[in-house]
Amino acid sequence: MPTIKDLGEKKLLQWLQTFCQADSVGDDAALVHLDPFQDLVITTDVLVDGVHFSEQTTGPFEVGYRSAGANLSDLAAMGATPLGLTVGLSLPPELPLDWLEKLYQGINALNTPIIGGDLTRSSVITIGITAIGQVLPSRVIKRSNAKVGDLIVVTGWHGLSRGGLELLLKPALSKRLDPDVVKSLIDAHQRPRPRLDVIDVLWSIPQLDRVAGMDSSDGLADAIVQICNSSKVGAQIDSLACPAQLQGWLSQKDALDWILYGGEDFELVLTMAKPFAEKLVSQLGPPAAIIGQITQNQEIYLVGDNSSLDLCKGFQHF
Amino acid sequence: MPTIKDLGEKKLLQWLQTFCQADSVGDDAALVHLDPFQDLVITTDVLVDGVHFSEQTTGPFEVGYRSAGANLSDLAAMGATPLGLTVGLSLPPELPLDWLEKLYQGINALNTPIIGGDLTRSSVITIGITAIGQVLPSRVIKRSNAKVGDLIVVTGWHGLSRGGLELLLKPALSKRLDPDVVKSLIDAHQRPRPRLDVIDVLWSIPQLDRVAGMDSSDGLADAIVQICNSSKVGAQIDSLACPAQLQGWLSQKDALDWILYGGEDFELVLTMAKPFAEKLVSQLGPPAAIIGQITQNQEIYLVGDNSSLDLCKGFQHF
Repeated sequence: MPTIKDLGEKKLLQWLQTFCQADSVGDDAALVHLDPFQDLVITTDVLVDGVHFSEQTTGPFEVGYRSAGANLSDLAAMGATPLGLTVGLSLPPELPLDWLEKLYQGINALNTPIIGGDLTRSSVITIGITAIGQVLPSRVIKRSNAKVGDLIVVTGWHGLSRGGLELLLKPALSKRLDPDVVKSLIDAHQRPRPRLDVIDVLWSIPQLDRVAGMDSSDGLADAIVQICNSSKVGAQIDSLACPAQLQGWLSQKDALDWILYGGEDFELVLTMAKPFAEKLVSQLGPPAAIIGQITQNQEIYLVGDNSSLDLCKGFQHF
Repeated sequence: MPTIKDLGEKKLLQWLQTFCQADSVGDDAALVHLDPFQDLVITTDVLVDGVHFSEQTTGPFEVGYRSAGANLSDLAAMGATPLGLTVGLSLPPELPLDWLEKLYQGINALNTPIIGGDLTRSSVITIGITAIGQVLPSRVIKRSNAKVGDLIVVTGWHGLSRGGLELLLKPALSKRLDPDVVKSLIDAHQRPRPRLDVIDVLWSIPQLDRVAGMDSSDGLADAIVQICNSSKVGAQIDSLACPAQLQGWLSQKDALDWILYGGEDFELVLTMAKPFAEKLVSQLGPPAAIIGQITQNQEIYLVGDNSSLDLCKGFQHF
């Protein structure tokens, strides 16, 4: 009898979509049309001890922070403002209360109210967070909205979270690096900031009428590929910058690998017409930057590298 | 260092509420005020293999049906109409696809669209379902709304789900019972119907302006106790009927125990002024019934039994 493992994550998710409401599932979160002035955006993430976090790399505060942050980043990716979070916990009865307190402190550090939840016992710590947000229907950010000629904006550095993970997994590496660099990389991994702040800045730009995009939690390359596939366009990436914290101790090839495929930076990757992109980058300031443009040819090129992105390197959960 | 188990479920939930938004948590679900014409109602339930279900009593269809049903019953308990469900799953990679298909079929059997979710691997099957509903702010059903003189209405039988569980745990018992009785008890346990249908009937009653109540998923006694505690009133229960399916094979004492404390019947327990209660019961028809009334004296009496309800028999998760 075929199992989940046999099918693989991608096919499994496609198959599960046949059970879901066709027009609501997709992009980073579900969309429910309430009335002409309100869409609800709803997103769920489940974190499992030993799969998504471990005592070595992520304490309870960081588990809470990251799981709430991942959900809020999904709201930001759709252009939504958070209304609240629900927290569904399955916990071993022997878990110290101190662990649970730090988990909740981590969730609350993101300043979105916890409005409900459920608590049950299990042999494996499992944390399911659902975030609910709202957005004007005309301001929903979709992956499928990119147009040829759009510039591609990133709202911050990529590769830092992957750098922090490396230092947590191989603490000896830290001795060779400046303590400030170590701290900033580990912070980037443990407390990535969902870019809800970008949404207000975005819609303060006069005459902006269309934005495509998503967040980069599964990696910058994945975000570009998803946007291009959904919009049936290509992209030319010509100015990827390497964060100072990765320079010096990584080869250029490894640094590029982490920037493109590292993941979990929770930045936004947005495309829009040139004048708006330039305005957004100037208002956000560095490290927000224009990294390339959307092209008609349905391929993705890294200029300088002369290679198309490797689409198969995404993280597979199964 | 104190653990979750040391604190116990009740104190643990009280303590966790200090991390939550004060005015939204409580009753059966969270309430978010969107605008003068809309409140959102959000509820989450987590089911864990070996804790909330087992292969012996609950196949995958029933696990899906019951977990979606529990959430929808929470929406009904607040007077809300469902907008959609999200499904967060943690599953062992060796799980047969057939199991997953039946789970989703069970969720979909309740006719509320699945609008999103997350899927991850774990050693323990864990199902987190979040339901989102909407309700007019003036029509929110609250536990704290009961007034002295209100009649107490139940929308259906209690004790049937507990009866079905008994037959599933002790299959030999079934041989002594009529096959139709066996089927109806097992159905009551495996596929309890959330009473969303009651909400429309309720608000079709002219001049109805206030309803208190909750669902009876944690037992009829628990529902009465919660309503009385929240409303600072008491209750006199004087006409509890015993469903025909429990008569004959149970002592009167055991039948009363299952009716009061069995749980998981997913009916609504509502209180309202006498003329509205009578109208509701007549519109719903049997087995909907008036079982007693709200009293000033903050105690709960079972007339005939001459004893106050045992408040300590609720299900403890830890």
